[in-house]
Amino acid sequence: MSLVVKKFGGSSVATPEKIKAVAARVLQEKRPEDSVVVVVSAMGDTTDELISLAKAITGKHYGREMDMLLSTGEQVSIALLAMAFSELGQPAVSFTGFQAGIRTSAAYGKGRINNIEPQRVLTELEEGKIVVVAGFQGINACGDIVTLGRGGSDTTAVALAGAIKADVCEIFTDVEGIYSADPRIVVNAKKMQEVTYNEMLEMARLGALVMQPRSVEMGKHYHVPIHVRSTFTEKTGTIIREEYTMEEREFIIRGVTHDTNVVKIAVLGVPDRPGIAYKIFSALAEANIDVDMIVQSIRNADKNMNDIVFTVTKPDLAQAKEILETIARELNLLDVVIKDSVAKVSVVGAGMLGSPGIAATMFGALGDAGINIEVISTSEISISCLIDASQVREAVNAIHQRFFPE
Amino acid sequence: MSLVVKKFGGSSVATPEKIKAVAARVLQEKRPEDSVVVVVSAMGDTTDELISLAKAITGKHYGREMDMLLSTGEQVSIALLAMAFSELGQPAVSFTGFQAGIRTSAAYGKGRINNIEPQRVLTELEEGKIVVVAGFQGINACGDIVTLGRGGSDTTAVALAGAIKADVCEIFTDVEGIYSADPRIVVNAKKMQEVTYNEMLEMARLGALVMQPRSVEMGKHYHVPIHVRSTFTEKTGTIIREEYTMEEREFIIRGVTHDTNVVKIAVLGVPDRPGIAYKIFSALAEANIDVDMIVQSIRNADKNMNDIVFTVTKPDLAQAKEILETIARELNLLDVVIKDSVAKVSVVGAGMLGSPGIAATMFGALGDAGINIEVISTSEISISCLIDASQVREAVNAIHQRFFPE
Repeated sequence: MSLVVKKFGGSSVATPEKIKAVAARVLQEKRPEDSVVVVVSAMGDTTDELISLAKAITGKHYGREMDMLLSTGEQVSIALLAMAFSELGQPAVSFTGFQAGIRTSAAYGKGRINNIEPQRVLTELEEGKIVVVAGFQGINACGDIVTLGRGGSDTTAVALAGAIKADVCEIFTDVEGIYSADPRIVVNAKKMQEVTYNEMLEMARLGALVMQPRSVEMGKHYHVPIHVRSTFTEKTGTIIREEYTMEEREFIIRGVTHDTNVVKIAVLGVPDRPGIAYKIFSALAEANIDVDMIVQSIRNADKNMNDIVFTVTKPDLAQAKEILETIARELNLLDVVIKDSVAKVSVVGAGMLGSPGIAATMFGALGDAGINIEVISTSEISISCLIDASQVREAVNAIHQRFFPE
Repeated sequence: MSLVVKKFGGSSVATPEKIKAVAARVLQEKRPEDSVVVVVSAMGDTTDELISLAKAITGKHYGREMDMLLSTGEQVSIALLAMAFSELGQPAVSFTGFQAGIRTSAAYGKGRINNIEPQRVLTELEEGKIVVVAGFQGINACGDIVTLGRGGSDTTAVALAGAIKADVCEIFTDVEGIYSADPRIVVNAKKMQEVTYNEMLEMARLGALVMQPRSVEMGKHYHVPIHVRSTFTEKTGTIIREEYTMEEREFIIRGVTHDTNVVKIAVLGVPDRPGIAYKIFSALAEANIDVDMIVQSIRNADKNMNDIVFTVTKPDLAQAKEILETIARELNLLDVVIKDSVAKVSVVGAGMLGSPGIAATMFGALGDAGINIEVISTSEISISCLIDASQVREAVNAIHQRFFPE
């Protein structure tokens, strides 16, 4: 027997017909001795429709009331899915985030799960029911409904799996698992059988969109294996877990990712004095702007001047530019130069720690394809290159071909 | 200063524009020192749309999940109305039934309010906020959402007014108050300034549709004056309370009501033996069928046989007929005769207790109009006549003209 949490997203439950299909599919896989919790998101475009209603009332954002409004979306799906199970003869019960014991921080629209009191969920499972839980929501210490923000339903599913000590948390999605590269770009991208939490986190950070880092971190913390798999087939997908089983160790590189949502910023002529870099990056950090790929190079050794290059995400550009131009005026720097037609390509793999030559192989692949590298940065389990955005497809394919020949 | 609960129904909050209008209207009447709770129903056709979704999943009725589903309707309205208040500069906070402390019985779809713990409501009122509460819903002892059934939002409003000791509960509706007869039938029907709980209950029982008896009973129990008034004007409507103020006493009859949702049933040739009537009416009571206007007459004194005539509501007819035909066979009765083209016209007024001649005046009005009376029944504060359904408009006008000549 096993205890499983299964999560289905909004597109899987977009219509009553799809909800019935989800119920049928869950029952098809469920052995009589299995205990199953299903976490669902709001049906299809429901969340957008609710947001439109709010926008028709006010241009302002009232966090508490917005969460009160948006949380109804999942409440509709759970009720309908529980009915669909009952209709198929499987006793089921639906729980809002509150009823499932999901306690969050007070931050409306971006709540963090503080703890889960899963007693009601466990009691109903013991009675042989499938428990259907609303994703994306919980209740804070004031008794108010709080939504969890982006990727919130995945987070609910993984956290709940941790709280009830489930054997696995299955995330159903429209792809068959985690691939060695985006299959829309690399035709022969390989589906991975396994990937570690750390690799998945790094891949998500570097542009892989299948999983939000948040729920992967949650899985890592609670030691919950996460099985990313397709809504449409019964095939095994990719399992995210602490360590590989033996036979998976052979792959040094797990995946090639790319991210076009980045901008390169070069701050030119920065005096080589202690505290200057701190001033620049602390101002960006205060504005909650994520900075990556920081490289400092000497511009003019005689004048003790450096250039500092880094990347930010596109949505942060306007604010970053304003902050940097203010600092440039104050400190009399040479210039702030923006290049927004860039892309970051990366290779990720825990195995590269003990394998020299990975960087050389990657640079070689790019060089042979005639692609210029603008910036390089590395972590313990990844190497990233910033290139021109127009060459991203070519770059990902060249690198993937080198690491995953055949 | 005053403490007021105001209730707006689904048609008053059917669109974002109407929700904004409700907020504006509430603020227009609110003096700075007033404390206001607003109870709202689901927007327009929302409840019907949710029911359609459920019907697309299953033909069966799963009470708990249906309540989980339907309660989202009010949750959407309260969030939007709270935003609308905030948009107008008035701090507001929305509460689900659960958050407002509304505890109900376990009966899904037809919960009864057992008690209200209004602490959060009172705290927010003290902080100067308008509190917006979801009508029609509460939470039972298991922590599950329960809806209150027909007229549920009115019940929420009146019960909450009782729990927080409000000065008045205002029910906003599409008519200007309670009238001496249905204004669609009697052109010069008068709006009453006041009516007692008992009169209103009797009028509701006898066909007046403005208020459900449940919320009137709740008002009576908690001594909450209920002000029934129009959403579209600022005029005073009708106040339902324990007793009249002096100047209202002059009206002996408060209203003329009619009810076409009735069927006459005659059970013919019933042996005049103890226990036979009990057998008939206990069988109907067991099936939860409401019976009214019971009249027994002697059919054949030599054979000790009676006829028993009574009315049931149209939706109960099929079941009542089946029960009665079974009993007729068992007891060898003569026949069960149904007449469904009947209507009940009634006069209601607490003052009739001390005023002889009311019945005679009513019968005279019907007789002068050439309307035959099929059955008569009376209570302490009402007299009802069953007539042919085709003459209902004429009958109501004739009676109204006699009691409210002007």
